[in-house]
Amino acid sequence: MNAATPAPTREESAQDRWDRIPVIKTGDDYLASLRNRGTRLFLFGELIDEPADHPIIKPSINALRASYDLAIEDPELATAWSPLIEQQVNRFLHIVESPSDLVKKNKMQRRMGQITGTCFQRCTGLDTISVLHSVTYEIDEKHGTQYHQRYLEFLKEAQRKNILIAAGMTDPKGDRSKRPAEQADPDMFMRVTRRTDKGIYVKGVKAHMTGGWNQHWICVLPTMNLTEGDKDYAVVGMIPGDAEGITYIYGRQSCDTRALEGGDIDQGNAQYGGQEVLVYFDDVFIPNEHVFMDGEYEFAQELVTRFTAYHRASYVCKTGLGDVMVGAAASIVEYNGLEKVSHIRDKLVEMTHLNETIYSSGIASSHEAKKMPSGIYMNDTMLANVCKHNVTRFPYEISRLAQDLAGGIMVTMPSEQDLDNEEAGDIIRRFLKGRDDIPTEDRMRILRLIENMTLGRNAVGYLTESMHGAGSPQAQRIQILRGMEVEKKKWHARKLAGIKQEA
Amino acid sequence: MNAATPAPTREESAQDRWDRIPVIKTGDDYLASLRNRGTRLFLFGELIDEPADHPIIKPSINALRASYDLAIEDPELATAWSPLIEQQVNRFLHIVESPSDLVKKNKMQRRMGQITGTCFQRCTGLDTISVLHSVTYEIDEKHGTQYHQRYLEFLKEAQRKNILIAAGMTDPKGDRSKRPAEQADPDMFMRVTRRTDKGIYVKGVKAHMTGGWNQHWICVLPTMNLTEGDKDYAVVGMIPGDAEGITYIYGRQSCDTRALEGGDIDQGNAQYGGQEVLVYFDDVFIPNEHVFMDGEYEFAQELVTRFTAYHRASYVCKTGLGDVMVGAAASIVEYNGLEKVSHIRDKLVEMTHLNETIYSSGIASSHEAKKMPSGIYMNDTMLANVCKHNVTRFPYEISRLAQDLAGGIMVTMPSEQDLDNEEAGDIIRRFLKGRDDIPTEDRMRILRLIENMTLGRNAVGYLTESMHGAGSPQAQRIQILRGMEVEKKKWHARKLAGIKQEA
Amino acid sequence: MNAATPAPTREESAQDRWDRIPVIKTGDDYLASLRNRGTRLFLFGELIDEPADHPIIKPSINALRASYDLAIEDPELATAWSPLIEQQVNRFLHIVESPSDLVKKNKMQRRMGQITGTCFQRCTGLDTISVLHSVTYEIDEKHGTQYHQRYLEFLKEAQRKNILIAAGMTDPKGDRSKRPAEQADPDMFMRVTRRTDKGIYVKGVKAHMTGGWNQHWICVLPTMNLTEGDKDYAVVGMIPGDAEGITYIYGRQSCDTRALEGGDIDQGNAQYGGQEVLVYFDDVFIPNEHVFMDGEYEFAQELVTRFTAYHRASYVCKTGLGDVMVGAAASIVEYNGLEKVSHIRDKLVEMTHLNETIYSSGIASSHEAKKMPSGIYMNDTMLANVCKHNVTRFPYEISRLAQDLAGGIMVTMPSEQDLDNEEAGDIIRRFLKGRDDIPTEDRMRILRLIENMTLGRNAVGYLTESMHGAGSPQAQRIQILRGMEVEKKKWHARKLAGIKQEA
Amino acid sequence: MNAATPAPTREESAQDRWDRIPVIKTGDDYLASLRNRGTRLFLFGELIDEPADHPIIKPSINALRASYDLAIEDPELATAWSPLIEQQVNRFLHIVESPSDLVKKNKMQRRMGQITGTCFQRCTGLDTISVLHSVTYEIDEKHGTQYHQRYLEFLKEAQRKNILIAAGMTDPKGDRSKRPAEQADPDMFMRVTRRTDKGIYVKGVKAHMTGGWNQHWICVLPTMNLTEGDKDYAVVGMIPGDAEGITYIYGRQSCDTRALEGGDIDQGNAQYGGQEVLVYFDDVFIPNEHVFMDGEYEFAQELVTRFTAYHRASYVCKTGLGDVMVGAAASIVEYNGLEKVSHIRDKLVEMTHLNETIYSSGIASSHEAKKMPSGIYMNDTMLANVCKHNVTRFPYEISRLAQDLAGGIMVTMPSEQDLDNEEAGDIIRRFLKGRDDIPTEDRMRILRLIENMTLGRNAVGYLTESMHGAGSPQAQRIQILRGMEVEKKKWHARKLAGIKQEA
Repeated sequence: MNAATPAPTREESAQDRWDRIPVIKTGDDYLASLRNRGTRLFLFGELIDEPADHPIIKPSINALRASYDLAIEDPELATAWSPLIEQQVNRFLHIVESPSDLVKKNKMQRRMGQITGTCFQRCTGLDTISVLHSVTYEIDEKHGTQYHQRYLEFLKEAQRKNILIAAGMTDPKGDRSKRPAEQADPDMFMRVTRRTDKGIYVKGVKAHMTGGWNQHWICVLPTMNLTEGDKDYAVVGMIPGDAEGITYIYGRQSCDTRALEGGDIDQGNAQYGGQEVLVYFDDVFIPNEHVFMDGEYEFAQELVTRFTAYHRASYVCKTGLGDVMVGAAASIVEYNGLEKVSHIRDKLVEMTHLNETIYSSGIASSHEAKKMPSGIYMNDTMLANVCKHNVTRFPYEISRLAQDLAGGIMVTMPSEQDLDNEEAGDIIRRFLKGRDDIPTEDRMRILRLIENMTLGRNAVGYLTESMHGAGSPQAQRIQILRGMEVEKKKWHARKLAGIKQEA
Repeated sequence: MNAATPAPTREESAQDRWDRIPVIKTGDDYLASLRNRGTRLFLFGELIDEPADHPIIKPSINALRASYDLAIEDPELATAWSPLIEQQVNRFLHIVESPSDLVKKNKMQRRMGQITGTCFQRCTGLDTISVLHSVTYEIDEKHGTQYHQRYLEFLKEAQRKNILIAAGMTDPKGDRSKRPAEQADPDMFMRVTRRTDKGIYVKGVKAHMTGGWNQHWICVLPTMNLTEGDKDYAVVGMIPGDAEGITYIYGRQSCDTRALEGGDIDQGNAQYGGQEVLVYFDDVFIPNEHVFMDGEYEFAQELVTRFTAYHRASYVCKTGLGDVMVGAAASIVEYNGLEKVSHIRDKLVEMTHLNETIYSSGIASSHEAKKMPSGIYMNDTMLANVCKHNVTRFPYEISRLAQDLAGGIMVTMPSEQDLDNEEAGDIIRRFLKGRDDIPTEDRMRILRLIENMTLGRNAVGYLTESMHGAGSPQAQRIQILRGMEVEKKKWHARKLAGIKQEA
Repeated sequence: MNAATPAPTREESAQDRWDRIPVIKTGDDYLASLRNRGTRLFLFGELIDEPADHPIIKPSINALRASYDLAIEDPELATAWSPLIEQQVNRFLHIVESPSDLVKKNKMQRRMGQITGTCFQRCTGLDTISVLHSVTYEIDEKHGTQYHQRYLEFLKEAQRKNILIAAGMTDPKGDRSKRPAEQADPDMFMRVTRRTDKGIYVKGVKAHMTGGWNQHWICVLPTMNLTEGDKDYAVVGMIPGDAEGITYIYGRQSCDTRALEGGDIDQGNAQYGGQEVLVYFDDVFIPNEHVFMDGEYEFAQELVTRFTAYHRASYVCKTGLGDVMVGAAASIVEYNGLEKVSHIRDKLVEMTHLNETIYSSGIASSHEAKKMPSGIYMNDTMLANVCKHNVTRFPYEISRLAQDLAGGIMVTMPSEQDLDNEEAGDIIRRFLKGRDDIPTEDRMRILRLIENMTLGRNAVGYLTESMHGAGSPQAQRIQILRGMEVEKKKWHARKLAGIKQEA
Repeated sequence: MNAATPAPTREESAQDRWDRIPVIKTGDDYLASLRNRGTRLFLFGELIDEPADHPIIKPSINALRASYDLAIEDPELATAWSPLIEQQVNRFLHIVESPSDLVKKNKMQRRMGQITGTCFQRCTGLDTISVLHSVTYEIDEKHGTQYHQRYLEFLKEAQRKNILIAAGMTDPKGDRSKRPAEQADPDMFMRVTRRTDKGIYVKGVKAHMTGGWNQHWICVLPTMNLTEGDKDYAVVGMIPGDAEGITYIYGRQSCDTRALEGGDIDQGNAQYGGQEVLVYFDDVFIPNEHVFMDGEYEFAQELVTRFTAYHRASYVCKTGLGDVMVGAAASIVEYNGLEKVSHIRDKLVEMTHLNETIYSSGIASSHEAKKMPSGIYMNDTMLANVCKHNVTRFPYEISRLAQDLAGGIMVTMPSEQDLDNEEAGDIIRRFLKGRDDIPTEDRMRILRLIENMTLGRNAVGYLTESMHGAGSPQAQRIQILRGMEVEKKKWHARKLAGIKQEA
């Protein structure tokens, strides 16, 4: 089935789509739910038969799976009571009912980062359902549409089945000086190509979709503000990951093929990894029940601003990865017998200080959340941008310090296969030993973990995604400029300087 | 009275001491309460007759006065309901009953910073009453003493009369390799020299006491952990600022004498300033009712740790000064007609980003507060240290950027007297003009304000005090080291690296 | 004579002007040469009778004086052989004959910084004569004028008499969106108002002129590129500091009036200081012999670019001040008995590292000097800009670290007069002692020196002037952008990436 | 031959060893010289038959090869006149006869960095022959030995044959609290195990040897200061890379196996790479003619200090890689049509500024070189350490900025094989296009180059090696502490503060 070119997609009903997805309780259920979906996924130039079992893909699935496991192990942290279905639900599917919910979300994110050491890909889904709550409500208020009710129905089912939602936001954008409707190629931004009684058809590409294949639903959303001429581009809808017409192309990551080598040392973090995919939607059908915006272009900007407010504070997850970095650096230092050395301790302190500074802006942003007309809470925009902006800086410095503490051996060390070779292995074990009571292999494992997070597969999540996820640094600076209340600050300064002005 | 050497101090009763202090409602009441106290204060080598009216001292009094005015103008922010006396009280005298109280405290501190552009000197008092609540409670628990009740009685009267409390913490320390009781000069740390039925006598010096003269009571506290041999140094007590036996020596500040020149431009911020004094206690009596620790040396360390937890988060006040810096920089940029220039806007954004990062750690520390056995809340220690540690860095960078935006004219500009001279004034007005519609004088005022906060009188508060107040940077690093939970972080790292360890 | 409004200035001959200036050999000669010049100088709203003896002005004169003394004490460093007059001359008047001359200039500047701890004000003069060598030569080449010969004659006499030259470059600029000739006030940029057979008359203001009153000659120069319409603004000429028609207004500095208090502790650096003046030229005559440009507007930009190339590398002088900062910080640390503490040593290392990084870019810029058509050498523009750009950053961080090491006592310490008071002095001496064998007064002196350089009078030179002197940071960034050879760099990148391109 | 365990090595004569190596003129000659050497090299657990042709090793050979090609293309830069053999020789084999030679070396290093974008592995050899010149001379002076003459004979032959020398310096060190002779395993530091009439036998391991397999000779050197008990560890000798008893184990690098995938896009820089190997010497013979130290332990520290002085300034090579980073970032910006955007240009300026700051300290260190007793020049130690210390910081920030400019697509982009697949390739080409006239493939190539240098194979050289090569940051800080002349600086500070001291 995988190899063929897609036929025109069926107008599959909302119910049929839900029926394909089982109720998921455990991590094992989740893994089973990904198999046999018949999706078209390219990886290294080939369509992959069963992506769920591919060694390169598996670690990214494991990371999401940990979100199911955590809900069982620590329900207070990772679940919440849903008044919608009157059940305890995974917190990643919970509506934000208070600032405290946002703080708990942050703590869960940090914990997930500690557990996986990578991007666990579930925040975009949570932030999507958060932003849609208020935006659908406000569209309905203005236009008399029914989006909010549709959204609530979808969400109830999502909570009942305990599924995953990926956000498809970033369009390729083409010529950046032109609006969506002005592009030479009309598909450069996702658009509605056709409307029937039952639903709509969308066409376009969503780039760097985090965990895009690993989730049950994809929510497509506009990527920026739109004008009247862009009406067909103003579309929000939920699409099952195995809908007809979707093609996935897998994004490659530094050192990705180490997962194919066998062994588990050189991967650094053999169990967990991130996933980014390029997703092509070739006239994919969305039934009306799953359409949450169609044409209300004037809400696109607000939708994006609110999404980034939620999502930029979600980058507090990187403090969980930062905890792993501190732990890895402290471990290698201990393995080298140097944990008492003053300048070394000082570097661990600096790493911690930077990490906790990030954490602070996340928590503060959540604490300062305000209630929206729809009843949901949204965290403070300024502080969310400050949080993310620190994330574009401090993980790089933390990473630099970790490399400092690791020593050059991190990048000159022989391979795991050499360790397994009898002759080479003997030399390595004998001479690459640190403290006497620590096996050489453990020392190598920690070094490979630091390599993994600063140069390798999870450096993608810890560094580059920290830079660009939820908007590049300049995007935050623009929001900070907008929110800085400069007139009020000028007023205070002039008052103190003794300049006459109105009160 | 001022000129004579002090006679042996009377064993004045607690009641007599309170009787000297009126009920204070307004800023004017406060100012009146400082007059005619007969204190001994040296400034520039002379005993000052009425410090409350001295032009150098006045701005520091104004800053505290603003805390009274704010309580009237914005009671929601600056007052709170006290269950102790069942009245609304100034928030600076309020017991922390919840994390929310701490957040409100932070917001009041930022606002006070915006209003005064300087150190308003009232935080040490609030943080002192906060820490004494839990510490006196715990001493009583262990030793069966009555400190907590004494403390509550004091606090009720303090709330009723709405008075100010200065904290006297820093001893001169002498030879830093020796403990208090080992010093060649036994007075290098404050100690109890005598005990009678009615109370105790203390002797010693408290250095850089913030707003030390401006407040009605001084609470003396130990400055560091103590051992059994240091018992006489383990003393906490409340002393009225006009008690017999106290000598104040005024700390000088950059550009302090500009206040003596007449005019109000060159001072930069003519209305508000900070105050630091060196205070000598020469066998000063404290009645038993006002003694809150006497000999329980083992609580000294915890007292200091908790005090710094409260107080390091109080440095969020500097974000109010940061707001003034941003406002001043934005004003000079506007006066020069350059507010649209890209790199200039970018610098304002950077200043704001750094300022809000500090704010975040304050708010987050407050949000994460925990309840103490005595019923009071204490903010998170790690995040309080992170907050203060950022304060030792970012104001310097904000200040550097403000100087960048101000231009060199900030330090080459002629004096206010030259502006007042007809001939020189004409040249200055004609040639130092920026944008056509802005009076040269206004431009000069803003430049002098930036000078004031980056080089002048209030640079003391905005920079050097940001560095050293509530402990120098290294003190925070030690706390961060202690609180970083490195074992837990190592565990996560080793788990991900595939190293066998106990669960 | 000082009080009257200036009459129309005489057309004084070049010879008469030189005749007023004696041959200067020693620092004493120099000081004598400044007296009785009958200049009009405003300071604090008054015309000063004899500026050379004013306590606020004296330290700035001392700094220049040190350049005479150094030439006697260390002639190898501070003098050079002039082929123009076949004599050894002060290096500050020497033509750059090789890269090695530039390196020696840098070393002399660092040494002068170490000796004075302030801006010694003589670099603008040296950089002016350097840039005029090549520019006058090239104007003559194009226009057949005689400027280069005039310049050489002037320089010979300058070398013979061993005089000082101040550069008057910065015009007030008024409305920054308009060119000089378009300004509402035609005098917003200095211009030629009249031409006679004997010379020209100039009118305008030069702002923040470093050491403007302390020098024998002022060279006025255009401040930016000019167009044909700005011809009257394209003027370069030498004017004696006591020429008729000049009015000086003294720039005030942080803590300037401490020099009036008596005593020498609280000044921090009682001997040396900088000077910035605003100078008004009211139709001041320049005889033709001293006119080096008049109307050749197309050379203005090159003149400015070359001047900044020389002058931005001159900021290597700040490494001399940096040495003093390191020395002061190391002293206070030693006085506190803490010189072995790891984090403290580390901060001294960081200060040194930053300081030597600045030094490196100065030396490298000099080493990479190229020969100009006129025979003079000019240092590398890119590296000169890099040098100055580091100067806009690192002194601020060095200063921050020095404040860290100094401790809060730097800004809470009582005044010198309190130390002189018997009672207050006893308390201070007893309790503000550091290490037992160090007098309290010495500790206070070092603390005042750090205050002087980070908040006080010489912070003007060490910080704000480091930011804005020779152009603000953005000016360097523009030059770095221009000189970065981005096409060459793209070529290398594309070659490595395997992209086809022309060789 | 490769598979067998080594027999006891022959006492091969110096002449026989030289005879195996041809005269090398071109890059092709060099490549030929590496083949058929019969070395034992482990890579991924296997002995490699012909390393010179292995796709992972080849790029590292190409980088060294470029040093031969450059000597032909630009002899003025990359060759020098050798008075030893009265011929023009490759500058990498030239004795430093002047500061100018050191500056030219720096310029050649930067150029090599631009050409290869990686570590070209030839600096350790040059710095080794530089340091041995003075050290052998001084040992002979003291001990009457003949090392210097032996060294000169070796060097002459090296110049004649135009060969490569790798430095083997870093011993595994084992328990860092113990000296070499005290280690449980006597081979933890390289040592002399046997001495015969003809020469010596050495045993031990040299870790992270840069380009260790790619060069004709390995010079083993002590890694730190030694005491009398460590005499057997005080050994310096030249060993041919194919000597009996040597086993190489190849160090793996991030993304190394991309070289095995076919294609040349995903490698980022398909042509050039670095090499680090672990080398085990199992009783390897060195004939007396090639022994340059044997037992003179007291010279070990000086040897290391001088080596690091030369070698830390050699890190100026990273400015060549920095040029490639700037070029790559400027290219991607141009491909996106964003080269005029203000904040983007500003980031390119910042990258350049940092890069040139590094360059400055290298050039300055060379310029300030001093002559040694042996007649060779050594660059300034302080500035060399400053140079390297900046290299441990700025490339990380340059890399961060490059990732900022690259955009997230750098880490989410599909593989080259997907581009080659017809269906996936069409989607990629259509949607990952930037500016209309730029092929998608070119855009991907530049992005892969940035990935290569910030996360991939050459990030090893650009980042981690910048951190640890020639000593980790703390090593430089120790040298800066030693060389900072703090007493002189204190003297200046105290003089200015008015403290009495000796002149």
